[in-house]
Amino acid sequence: MTKKSTNTVWHHATITRADREALHKHKSVILWFTGLSGSGKSTLAHAVEEHLHKTGNSTFVLDGDNVRHGLCSDLGFSDSDRVENIRRIGELAKLMTEAGVITLTAFISPFKSDREDARKRVPHGDFLEIYCQCPIETCEKRDVKGLYKKARAGEIPFFTGIGSPYEAPDRPELVINTHELTLDESVQKVLNLLIQRGIIKAKAG
Amino acid sequence: MTKKSTNTVWHHATITRADREALHKHKSVILWFTGLSGSGKSTLAHAVEEHLHKTGNSTFVLDGDNVRHGLCSDLGFSDSDRVENIRRIGELAKLMTEAGVITLTAFISPFKSDREDARKRVPHGDFLEIYCQCPIETCEKRDVKGLYKKARAGEIPFFTGIGSPYEAPDRPELVINTHELTLDESVQKVLNLLIQRGIIKAKAG
Repeated sequence: MTKKSTNTVWHHATITRADREALHKHKSVILWFTGLSGSGKSTLAHAVEEHLHKTGNSTFVLDGDNVRHGLCSDLGFSDSDRVENIRRIGELAKLMTEAGVITLTAFISPFKSDREDARKRVPHGDFLEIYCQCPIETCEKRDVKGLYKKARAGEIPFFTGIGSPYEAPDRPELVINTHELTLDESVQKVLNLLIQRGIIKAKAG
Repeated sequence: MTKKSTNTVWHHATITRADREALHKHKSVILWFTGLSGSGKSTLAHAVEEHLHKTGNSTFVLDGDNVRHGLCSDLGFSDSDRVENIRRIGELAKLMTEAGVITLTAFISPFKSDREDARKRVPHGDFLEIYCQCPIETCEKRDVKGLYKKARAGEIPFFTGIGSPYEAPDRPELVINTHELTLDESVQKVLNLLIQRGIIKAKAG
């Protein structure tokens, strides 16, 4: 690995993604949750992470809480800033998968083109789009963060679903009807996808 | 974990950094390598990663190869872009450590203030600054990428050490004289620091 003489060009060792996946004993992937505010993306992502973690998998959830005030703290909510926000999240998720981590992203990500860009950025099969489908009426009724109320009052001009469109995925890898399924059932659907794609192994028993 | 009735607010499960560190069986940390172009930062970071990986630790190296063309592809080399570049790398490294990964960054990062900002962004003890010290004459003699030659020819106006200053750290956690030590010796110094700080365990025998 090393050269003993000084002033020589040191050998450049490189641990690959495959090495890291082997260490973690599972493949890495991006689980890209998309859907309206209140559709259950973040809750589902964290519940999936909890299950994956407890069964020994390396995981991380990227969401508004850990990205908006950090990596993307310089960005606002203009069209171009929203595009750049999703671009950076895509790049971040890509690096996380290269680190051998199952990376779950939970952002509204309302525009098809942004999601397609994120998909194209990684090798085929690395980007699994999970559409959290829920009628806006239900999301608005939940209104956990009080955002719909503010949007209706005109306080959030380009709120997705009200002042700005949500473009549903044409061919997501998975659709979860979060208003019809329990959280357990929803988690299981995601786990089944991961097993089917060979990312994690099915547990015996 | 879940509620069985629909239309209720789902419970928000959260796996913490400590949980991920426990799974990986080591602590996470940022190893921030800084020094002139050609001082051996990237080579040392990759060699340290190789050793850590082979002894079962989760690792990732951030360097120009995987950041400049991705997350920071919109940035050039103006003063403000260079500041923003290092800011994003700091945020990225922070998220990686939250994912339980020992994160090694290998960038010239010539300005004290940028490195101090990255240090302040994370809890005390999470940022270990490793100064790859090497006389510029030696770096220039190596000139692996031919950059010094170009800089001397005026083709790279703000090249660190020639057209732009390198501000050496005042109190780095570690100084490695890369022109005096072998790569093995340098790697060992970094590993000793990690053991001393309780990030990884010393191997018996």
